Amino acid sequence: MNKEQLFEQIQKKKSFLCIGLDPVLDKLPKHLLKYNDPILEFNKQLIDATYDLCIAYKPNTAFYESRGVKGWETLVNTWKHIPKDVFTIADAKRGDIGNTSAMYAEAFFNEESSQMSFDSITVAPYMGKDSVSPFLEHPNKWVILLALTSNEGSQDFQIKQSDDQKLYEQVLTTSQKWANSEQMMYVVGATKPEEFQNIRRLVPDHFLLVPGIGAQGGSLSAVCQNGLNSRCGLLVNSARNIIYAGNGLDFAEKAREEALVLQQEMEQILIASKLI
Amino acid sequence: MNKEQLFEQIQKKKSFLCIGLDPVLDKLPKHLLKYNDPILEFNKQLIDATYDLCIAYKPNTAFYESRGVKGWETLVNTWKHIPKDVFTIADAKRGDIGNTSAMYAEAFFNEESSQMSFDSITVAPYMGKDSVSPFLEHPNKWVILLALTSNEGSQDFQIKQSDDQKLYEQVLTTSQKWANSEQMMYVVGATKPEEFQNIRRLVPDHFLLVPGIGAQGGSLSAVCQNGLNSRCGLLVNSARNIIYAGNGLDFAEKAREEALVLQQEMEQILIASKLI
Repeated sequence: MNKEQLFEQIQKKKSFLCIGLDPVLDKLPKHLLKYNDPILEFNKQLIDATYDLCIAYKPNTAFYESRGVKGWETLVNTWKHIPKDVFTIADAKRGDIGNTSAMYAEAFFNEESSQMSFDSITVAPYMGKDSVSPFLEHPNKWVILLALTSNEGSQDFQIKQSDDQKLYEQVLTTSQKWANSEQMMYVVGATKPEEFQNIRRLVPDHFLLVPGIGAQGGSLSAVCQNGLNSRCGLLVNSARNIIYAGNGLDFAEKAREEALVLQQEMEQILIASKLI
Repeated sequence: MNKEQLFEQIQKKKSFLCIGLDPVLDKLPKHLLKYNDPILEFNKQLIDATYDLCIAYKPNTAFYESRGVKGWETLVNTWKHIPKDVFTIADAKRGDIGNTSAMYAEAFFNEESSQMSFDSITVAPYMGKDSVSPFLEHPNKWVILLALTSNEGSQDFQIKQSDDQKLYEQVLTTSQKWANSEQMMYVVGATKPEEFQNIRRLVPDHFLLVPGIGAQGGSLSAVCQNGLNSRCGLLVNSARNIIYAGNGLDFAEKAREEALVLQQEMEQILIASKLI
């Protein structure tokens, strides 16, 4: 899916919601435990109940890997269940030397090799250009590079100042030499809304993947105030608030209700910003 | 395995060799293709032929993930085949917000959850303390934090200067507040031997995992000149030069010959340094 198609989906669904599929077995509604793969069933019902309200799904690979081979099977089957017109993000935070990143790209982008082909993958920038480039060799695929993350540890290194720029600003500036806004996005946490004005100065045209709404404390309106651009430019993620909205037979319905609240808030923002 | 036990293994085997198990199906000896899992057979024969010469095995997870579910099965079964007195490194370069890193720790440290329990995992430092801490909550397990990597892209951010320290030096300094040399190691590429004196000033007691010998151009003697400490303090990795030393029926024998050359060089270095 290219940038214009992504914007078309945003206009069509009146939403820039991304749903994080980060399920933990202990937190699932009990009636799902009778299924052969309860987490897959949980994801499928969530996807069926919400895909018209969101434009992206973001499974975090850690939640699948923690269950070993069977977790990886769940990840593959979850990816297969997502409708093809919904943008998919492998939240994997990979990154290694060139020939190794090329293998990670096979893992998440090459269906023939791994049975999965996500539209995008999150990548850590610490190892620099050759840790990112192999992902960009796959046409129509995106790298979503960590810039300023939503967690407390983001203060340890990401804001260190060097040559008049913080580290995350250097990541934004330097990585624009590697790919343009048609193939690169950035992770910017919703917990740092005061930074969005500055970030938009550095990357006016790029999409930003924004985690941290809800459970982590970020505010949607604060993010949008300075984060929106002429193609919306935001994918705002919510996970726990939606996927665990209910815990009974109607869990998917409850999840839909939560997603709907966010979608409707987003619709008002898109209208007010003349994007729809 | 704790630090003293690791040093005992080094003294016993007269080696500080780590073998990278990074197999690609296309490069395997053709006679292995008849096996149900050719990569597993390749790894098993390599391990059987070399485990008395090395003190660690380091499968890079990318090479397994690239093959999807069956690759993950190979990783599990490879881990199971490694003798328990050999140190194991999941070269996964993970790192995410706290609750997600906790899931990665389950994936690589908790056998009950994932059928694997490596001694250690490589972790990227970009997201800071809470992306690292969950791994440290597992007793007798190690974090191997990326500091100065062996690839060209290491020059993009790792050497940026701030507050009189390069970024990788800040990683070395700051992370010592999170864990001591009994639970933390650092990745330092063999392609930067001139940096080892400086690195040892900052982390005199820690083990360093050193990739980049061989195919990437690093020199063992240059690394050892300033890298050794009173407990050896080095795990030097070699992958392609060993695992692809031969391509026939005798591939494992050829791999052993290559490993033996390095082990004997290491033995001389350990003797000269009065460590054995």
